[in-house]
Amino acid sequence: MSTSGKVIKCRAAVAWDHNQPLVIEEIEVFPPLDHEVRIKIIATSICHSDLYFFREQSVYLGFPAVLGHEAAGIVESTGPGVTKFKPGDKVIPIFISQCGECRFCLHPESNHCVKNWSSQRPGKRYEVASDTTSRMKCKGQTLLQFLGTSTFSEYTVVSEVALAKIDDSAPLNKVCLLGCCIPTGYGAAVNTAKVKPGSTCAVFGLGAVGLAAVMGCKAAGATRIIVIDINKDKFEKAKVFGATDFVNPKDHARPIQEVLVEMTNGGVDFSLECVGNVDVMRSAFESCVKGWGVSVVVGYNDKDDVCTRPVQFLAGRTWKGCLFGGYKSVEGVPKLLNEYMAKKLKLDELVSHTLPLDRINEGFDLLIQGKSLRTVLEIGKQQ
Amino acid sequence: MSTSGKVIKCRAAVAWDHNQPLVIEEIEVFPPLDHEVRIKIIATSICHSDLYFFREQSVYLGFPAVLGHEAAGIVESTGPGVTKFKPGDKVIPIFISQCGECRFCLHPESNHCVKNWSSQRPGKRYEVASDTTSRMKCKGQTLLQFLGTSTFSEYTVVSEVALAKIDDSAPLNKVCLLGCCIPTGYGAAVNTAKVKPGSTCAVFGLGAVGLAAVMGCKAAGATRIIVIDINKDKFEKAKVFGATDFVNPKDHARPIQEVLVEMTNGGVDFSLECVGNVDVMRSAFESCVKGWGVSVVVGYNDKDDVCTRPVQFLAGRTWKGCLFGGYKSVEGVPKLLNEYMAKKLKLDELVSHTLPLDRINEGFDLLIQGKSLRTVLEIGKQQ
Repeated sequence: MSTSGKVIKCRAAVAWDHNQPLVIEEIEVFPPLDHEVRIKIIATSICHSDLYFFREQSVYLGFPAVLGHEAAGIVESTGPGVTKFKPGDKVIPIFISQCGECRFCLHPESNHCVKNWSSQRPGKRYEVASDTTSRMKCKGQTLLQFLGTSTFSEYTVVSEVALAKIDDSAPLNKVCLLGCCIPTGYGAAVNTAKVKPGSTCAVFGLGAVGLAAVMGCKAAGATRIIVIDINKDKFEKAKVFGATDFVNPKDHARPIQEVLVEMTNGGVDFSLECVGNVDVMRSAFESCVKGWGVSVVVGYNDKDDVCTRPVQFLAGRTWKGCLFGGYKSVEGVPKLLNEYMAKKLKLDELVSHTLPLDRINEGFDLLIQGKSLRTVLEIGKQQ
Repeated sequence: MSTSGKVIKCRAAVAWDHNQPLVIEEIEVFPPLDHEVRIKIIATSICHSDLYFFREQSVYLGFPAVLGHEAAGIVESTGPGVTKFKPGDKVIPIFISQCGECRFCLHPESNHCVKNWSSQRPGKRYEVASDTTSRMKCKGQTLLQFLGTSTFSEYTVVSEVALAKIDDSAPLNKVCLLGCCIPTGYGAAVNTAKVKPGSTCAVFGLGAVGLAAVMGCKAAGATRIIVIDINKDKFEKAKVFGATDFVNPKDHARPIQEVLVEMTNGGVDFSLECVGNVDVMRSAFESCVKGWGVSVVVGYNDKDDVCTRPVQFLAGRTWKGCLFGGYKSVEGVPKLLNEYMAKKLKLDELVSHTLPLDRINEGFDLLIQGKSLRTVLEIGKQQ
C-alpha cells in the first residue's frame, strides 16, 4: 500500500539534548511539501560533523534534533512541483544545495548556493537546524533537521535542490560516503587546492576526509604525499590511498611546520587540514613553501579563531577553504559515483564498521576513540 | 675624474638609534664587490616601511643603519662580473632580487628569489639589515644596509640581481616610486588578486600603496571601487585614481566588514589591505563575498598575529598576499615604466612633497601626520 501523501511512522535516532546518548524513537515523518522529496534511507554513515555540533557547538544545533547527513536512499514520494525525481529513484541527499539559478550556482568557482536549507532558517538558531523546514515530529515536538538532511532515520524529507540522483547499480551501503567525506576531502585536493602533477602535498588528519584528500592528491599527480597524524595506527591505511611519508607530531619537540619545511627543502606545494583544529590549520598553512604554497582548510571549526603572521601571506602563500570539496553538489555526486564505479575512486576501504541503527551510539563511541573511519548504519534494505 | 674603484665620501641620512631623528653625516661608500653595482642616487622617496622598521620593529633593523628603498639613480661603477650594467645607466634598485635562475625565479607565480640580500644575512639580525653585505661606513662603524638598498644616501652599492635598468628618458624624481609603492599596490590588484572586469573591489588604506591598488583595480576593469580610510582627506585623491565609493569607519559603529557586506549585497569580489594593521586585514578578508571572494594582504606587519574564523575559509574565501605586487622585480619595473611613459599609469599624482636630503626628518613627520603621500628627496642632479 502506498505511503504517498500520508504521515509515515518510523524509527529514528533522536538527539534530545546536548551530548546525551541518542535515543531510538518512533517518529512521524510528514509528506513532502512543494519541491521536497521524501526518502527511505537505506544506509547512512557517521561523520565527525555530526559529533562536532552535537558535542561541541550545540548552541547552533537546537534540540530535539535528528542528526545525520551522509546517506543514500530511495525516493518514497515527491511533493508538488518536483519533476526530476520519482518514487524508486536512488538518491543521495546533500547538505549543500544546487538550485542552478542563483549567482553562486552560475559562478564557475562557487558551490555556495543561496537556496540552501540554512537560508530558510528562522533566525533564532542561525546555523544548523531549522524548525520551519522540518517534516519530523516525535511525541508532539518538532524535530530539528540537522543540515536539512536528518538521515539517522528510516525516512526523511529534503529539498529537491539538495538531492543527487544516482545510478540504479550503485551499492547504497557504500556510496552513502559520497554524501560528505569523499567529495569533501577529494574535492579539496583536486578542485580547491588544484594539486599539480609532480607536487609535494601534506595532509593533516587521517580520518575519512583526510584519506579522501590523500586520494585526491594522488589522483592529481602528486609525487610525494606526506601525512600527519598523532595516531600512528592511521598510517597503514593512508598508504593504501597513496601516502608516501608519515609524520607523527608526537615524535617531534618542535612545531610540526618546521619539521615539514625541513623535510621538503622549504615547504610543501599544497597542504590540506582535515582535522578542524585551528592550531593544525596554522601548522598546515605555515608548512607551505613561500612563493606559491597553497593551504586548504577542510576541517570544520566555528568556535575558535585561526591565526598566522601576516608575513606568511606576504611571502606568497595562499589560504583557502571549501565545503563539499568545492563540488557543485547535485551534479558533482554522480560524477564521483562514475569514478567509483570505474574503480578510479576508492570508497569501500573507508568503511571500517557496519552497524544497525539501534547501535548508533556504539558508532559514535568508535569515532570518539579514533577506532573507526566510517561506521555505516544499515537502516533499510536495498531493493 | 673617475671615482671608480675608490672609496666615495658623500652625505647620507644615518639612523643611529631606534626612532631618533636621522642625522646627515659624511659617510664612506666602498667600491662594489663581485656582481655589485655602485649607484649615484638622484631621487628617493620615503615609504611607510622605512618608518615601520625604524619606529616599530627596530629589533630587526640594527644600528647604525641607512634606510631608504624607493629610489632611482645612475650607475657610477660596476664590480667584477657585472655585464648587464655600465656607468651612466639609469637604474632603480629593488628590495626583491631576480636572479633568473633559482626555482622561485623559474616558477611562473613567484617573485621570491632566493638570492635576495636577506639570504646573505649574518643570522644575528634575521630580517632587515646585514653587516656582511654593507659597503657603507661612518666614523669607523659599518652602516647596515636596510633591505639591501640604503637609498637615503648620495651613493649606495646594491647587488646586480636587485637592480632594474630603465630608459634614459625616465624622469628619476618621479619614477623612483617604481621602486616600491607603485608595483606593490598596482601589482597586488592585477597580479595577485587578479581583479576581473566588472568586479567590485575594496581598498583599505589610502596611502601611496593603497592608491596604486585603486589604480590597479581600475586598470583591471573593476566597475566599483570602494575605498576605506579613517582620514577623509584622502578621498579626494582616491577619486583621481578611480575610487567610486568612500567609507570612513569612524562614521559607523559596527564592524566595517558588516557595512561593506551590506553595501554590496553580500560582499566584495576582491579586497586589498594596504595598511599593515591586523584588524584591518581581518576586516578586508571578511568583507569578501562567499564563494569566490579574494583578499590580498599588502601592508607589512610582522609584530602581530592576524586572525579569522575558519568558516570564513570554508565559505569559499581566499586569503593571499604578495611583496612588490608579485612582479618579478628586475623585469617588472621596466614594464611599469613603459606604462607610465604611455600615460597608462599615474605616478606624478602620488608625489605630494619634494624636499632636499637634509630635510628628511620633515618628510618623516609629514608621513606620521598623514599629510603626505610620497615625499621625494631630491638628492642628486639628473644628468
